Amino acid sequence: MSSDGAYGRLFIISAPSGAGKTSLVNKLIAEMPGIELSVSHTTRPQRPGEKAGIHYHFVSTEDFQGMIDEGLFLEHARVFDNFYGTSRTAVLERLAAGIDVILEIDWQGAQQVRAQLPDCLSIFIVPPSRSELQRRLSARGQDSAEVIARRMRDADAEISHYHEYDFVLINDDFAQALGRLRCIITAERQRTERQAEYVERLLG
Amino acid sequence: MSSDGAYGRLFIISAPSGAGKTSLVNKLIAEMPGIELSVSHTTRPQRPGEKAGIHYHFVSTEDFQGMIDEGLFLEHARVFDNFYGTSRTAVLERLAAGIDVILEIDWQGAQQVRAQLPDCLSIFIVPPSRSELQRRLSARGQDSAEVIARRMRDADAEISHYHEYDFVLINDDFAQALGRLRCIITAERQRTERQAEYVERLLG
Repeated sequence: MSSDGAYGRLFIISAPSGAGKTSLVNKLIAEMPGIELSVSHTTRPQRPGEKAGIHYHFVSTEDFQGMIDEGLFLEHARVFDNFYGTSRTAVLERLAAGIDVILEIDWQGAQQVRAQLPDCLSIFIVPPSRSELQRRLSARGQDSAEVIARRMRDADAEISHYHEYDFVLINDDFAQALGRLRCIITAERQRTERQAEYVERLLG
Repeated sequence: MSSDGAYGRLFIISAPSGAGKTSLVNKLIAEMPGIELSVSHTTRPQRPGEKAGIHYHFVSTEDFQGMIDEGLFLEHARVFDNFYGTSRTAVLERLAAGIDVILEIDWQGAQQVRAQLPDCLSIFIVPPSRSELQRRLSARGQDSAEVIARRMRDADAEISHYHEYDFVLINDDFAQALGRLRCIITAERQRTERQAEYVERLLG
């Protein structure tokens, strides 16, 4: 993939719930040209306001199982009674078009993708502190202390995999974290293999 | 070097004459905290306005030769009758202090440094086009067509080594090139090994 300057780069982004991943990624995608969020396949029912092919590719459980059997997923997971997965072909087509692609997945999905596409880069977003994470998780609504405690345990479990990632972004100040995220993408675009076509033309 | 989060990163920056390397690097150093230009050793005489230890470490040819014999240089070169070199100890001390260090050297020096410190990252700056490079080289003064032609040949020879570098920066628009250069440094600072201390504290 990296031998052709025209190819985009695959970025995996993971974070514990409450780290601010979705806000950061949505703002990045909205502002930066040439980068897109991968659209997952799912078996869960379409919700009001969701658009097929934009928010998800909605498929039947039977079709999803068929895709698993044929090895068509870069990664997939079952969450309660629903399946979620990332189509290998869809991602590779966007990369081949020179587009950078972002996958928002957890550490288990990240492991599956790295095994298939070792050229990908992975970014782990962390909150600035445990107390700030607790504050953010509590601020979401009227959840019981028990629910918040479970979310904190889930967050700790997710964070314990941070060392498997290439980059760690601390989301203390949103604008600063966004700037750093943008820098990771921008820096990758200056890689020699992505600039080679230009320089060859300059020399020729 | 990369196993300790506190260490800085060594960046090699090369460019053909006229690409704007020195202006970019000086502006970067002036604006960005935590990054420094390495101070070279040289045997050439101190010029008016130059400060020992700031612009160069001025040493005798005898002392320089002694340093070569003892293997104290990361890289060194002879330019006409003068020697220039980068002290291995000086660079490693700054990196150990958590400071990023920039070496402004040519492709031959870059090869020497990579052989000793494979963890370094190298950036090659190119002008946007051959005609723009010719314009910049001509604009410098009343040089003869012959001198400019030689400079263009030198530039072509330098550029032909671009593929040995990790990054290529096209210096078309100065502000854009500076922003991209800053992004390469900033992205490296988000590497997991440099953030590990923070995350371990977060988990602990």
